[in-house]
Amino acid sequence: MSAVKLEECRERIRTELDNVVDFWLKYSHDTVHGGFFTCIGKDGKVYDELKYVWLQGRQVWMYCRLYRSMERFHKPEILEAAKAGGAFLRKFARVSSSSGQWKCAFCLTRDGKAVKIQRTIFSECFYIMAMDELSRVTGDKDMQLEAEQMMEQLIFWVQKDSSGLGRPQLPGDIPTNGMAVPMMLLCLVQQLTEGRGQEVVQKYRELGSWCVQQILQHVQRDGTAILENVSLEGAELPGCQGRLQNPGHALEAGWFLLQFSAERGDEELQRTAIDKFVELPYQYGWDKEHGGLFYFLDVDGHCPTQLEWSMKLWWPHCEALIAFLMAYSQTKRPELLERFSQVYEYIFSHFSDAESGEWFGYLTQEGKVALDFKGGPFKGFFHVPRCLYMCERILDDLLENKD
Amino acid sequence: MSAVKLEECRERIRTELDNVVDFWLKYSHDTVHGGFFTCIGKDGKVYDELKYVWLQGRQVWMYCRLYRSMERFHKPEILEAAKAGGAFLRKFARVSSSSGQWKCAFCLTRDGKAVKIQRTIFSECFYIMAMDELSRVTGDKDMQLEAEQMMEQLIFWVQKDSSGLGRPQLPGDIPTNGMAVPMMLLCLVQQLTEGRGQEVVQKYRELGSWCVQQILQHVQRDGTAILENVSLEGAELPGCQGRLQNPGHALEAGWFLLQFSAERGDEELQRTAIDKFVELPYQYGWDKEHGGLFYFLDVDGHCPTQLEWSMKLWWPHCEALIAFLMAYSQTKRPELLERFSQVYEYIFSHFSDAESGEWFGYLTQEGKVALDFKGGPFKGFFHVPRCLYMCERILDDLLENKD
Repeated sequence: MSAVKLEECRERIRTELDNVVDFWLKYSHDTVHGGFFTCIGKDGKVYDELKYVWLQGRQVWMYCRLYRSMERFHKPEILEAAKAGGAFLRKFARVSSSSGQWKCAFCLTRDGKAVKIQRTIFSECFYIMAMDELSRVTGDKDMQLEAEQMMEQLIFWVQKDSSGLGRPQLPGDIPTNGMAVPMMLLCLVQQLTEGRGQEVVQKYRELGSWCVQQILQHVQRDGTAILENVSLEGAELPGCQGRLQNPGHALEAGWFLLQFSAERGDEELQRTAIDKFVELPYQYGWDKEHGGLFYFLDVDGHCPTQLEWSMKLWWPHCEALIAFLMAYSQTKRPELLERFSQVYEYIFSHFSDAESGEWFGYLTQEGKVALDFKGGPFKGFFHVPRCLYMCERILDDLLENKD
Repeated sequence: MSAVKLEECRERIRTELDNVVDFWLKYSHDTVHGGFFTCIGKDGKVYDELKYVWLQGRQVWMYCRLYRSMERFHKPEILEAAKAGGAFLRKFARVSSSSGQWKCAFCLTRDGKAVKIQRTIFSECFYIMAMDELSRVTGDKDMQLEAEQMMEQLIFWVQKDSSGLGRPQLPGDIPTNGMAVPMMLLCLVQQLTEGRGQEVVQKYRELGSWCVQQILQHVQRDGTAILENVSLEGAELPGCQGRLQNPGHALEAGWFLLQFSAERGDEELQRTAIDKFVELPYQYGWDKEHGGLFYFLDVDGHCPTQLEWSMKLWWPHCEALIAFLMAYSQTKRPELLERFSQVYEYIFSHFSDAESGEWFGYLTQEGKVALDFKGGPFKGFFHVPRCLYMCERILDDLLENKD
């Protein structure tokens, strides 16, 4: 791929990011109760007023990240939107659990009443991301402290005692190492330490290494497969749960590991990240017949039990785009750029909606739009803009340093 | 449709039922730990050993029902299989909850250790169905008593206090009337009272009427729509939850109501059942382009947020087949038989697997097999044989009484 072609990519990605930001600024703000609508139809119409906490936190994070790191988004309206979203979260998302610990709700009514609490850590993760990033643009030290306190609670749940999450302890429910947990914690370590002093970096140093270790446990079968769930000792689990593969998750872990290896100058980790978490998931996860990444697969070729296994979702493609471009930027291996280009073509010919803006999120295996909304309970202002923002920045670096 | 054609249908249905029973007798029995495997691949191979309690209970029920009501299934191997399944359920399915009440697990390991407990009533419902039906073939009065005791607990959870189910009470989580609950309770009332004395019939008489009342609350928008969730007062709920339609569920409720109206000689209820719960769901639920019933729809035409909304699942087609044939048998209106015929054709050209037996469960909107297993976490020995059994019996009556 030539520099001219990369320049074209950057322009398209830049324009797309502008359009996506405009879409959410225009349609998602609840000026009455605060927070963001996330169930937004094809043309921008709100079709449900529930407020999903993952997506509230992610939107605050994304607005702040754009505000603080890209000049053209350093605008008062973006800062104000992020602050309003943060205020809504702080006011309503935290609910006291039966164990006396703080939990975040999963879903709130439009005016902030808790509808549902998940017995997992993810609402809390996105709450922390939001608070930490918001504290960076507002200088609010209390908010940063709140993020760190919530992080302590998370670490306690993950490493010490998960009973506060509310799941009953059952004899057949063996604790597992699911990919999502160390990935999210690693993401949070990078979030909380980025550009901060040595004291904070040291505080989370060991946790970062532990997360990497936990992620690497998912490399199974002599390095030929990434499995989504393994035992706490890093062994393969029986049944569907043990055989499950989620190529998009593996690719996302891939670029988390690439970032981490670059920070620590760990070349062996970089090689593992590219071989096992970027190239391998593409090899088994890409649909040779119709193009695009499968959502779930079974490593032994059984049919997954998830009804949506063969669908093409927007977010694995976002993660793949970042992973291949980052891997290329660190190694300059041309085949990685070819993969980037392939994913890029698939995305812009399938997900991006030239007519009404933003991306469709859910396609059939054949690539037809299966669900036509732009935002839903799990699709908000996050994967698409994060992908475009990351890629634009990497392309800026690549094009600046081109020979 | 002529009597000759009906005769052909009956023959095919009869043969299909024989084949389906053979499939499960051959592949699903765990002779080591008891109970049934339900995760069974295309060709009969077990691909996961977890035991889902809904499906354990349903298989016991179905075996017993066939054993006691169809002469060709009155065989020792079927009785023994049902008894072994019942013993496994009694030994392992009941777990003591934190509230001190008895809950049934949702999922067990192969050797009976609880893996997951749902905070709903459905595992208990299928436990009751199994125990009651099994007590009818074994004459075990303790088992019948156990079914009735569990039923008392269910009624308490549904009508008095649901806190024993373990869901936290949240201010935004308004109690709703979901179609599944009164449907299941009505099914249980019919199960527990069928052919029993006046004392038992009287005991559940009021509950039966209450269930019908609750089901009828789902007729909304001046009788033009069946909505899956309504408020406890029978009003429409806001958002996606309130607009959700599940045509297969409505059709299943339809034939439950038809049975109930026949028992009580309630002609008005019969008319409502046919107009609103049989014909209406077909009108909005049938895919005019590709054939088959959609899984979920939104009454206002928004895209549902369930990723599988446009897929064609086996069980709504089972329910439709029963509903149209029962409605025809009660009214002899030819258009109902035409619908039966249409669903019949769709089923036998899409779901039934002539090669390896049993039915595929999950098709794409276009009718291609999307998940190729014969049994999974939600597909066991239940909807297919129940449908074939019900239809065969109705066809027997129709053909016997033909003019």
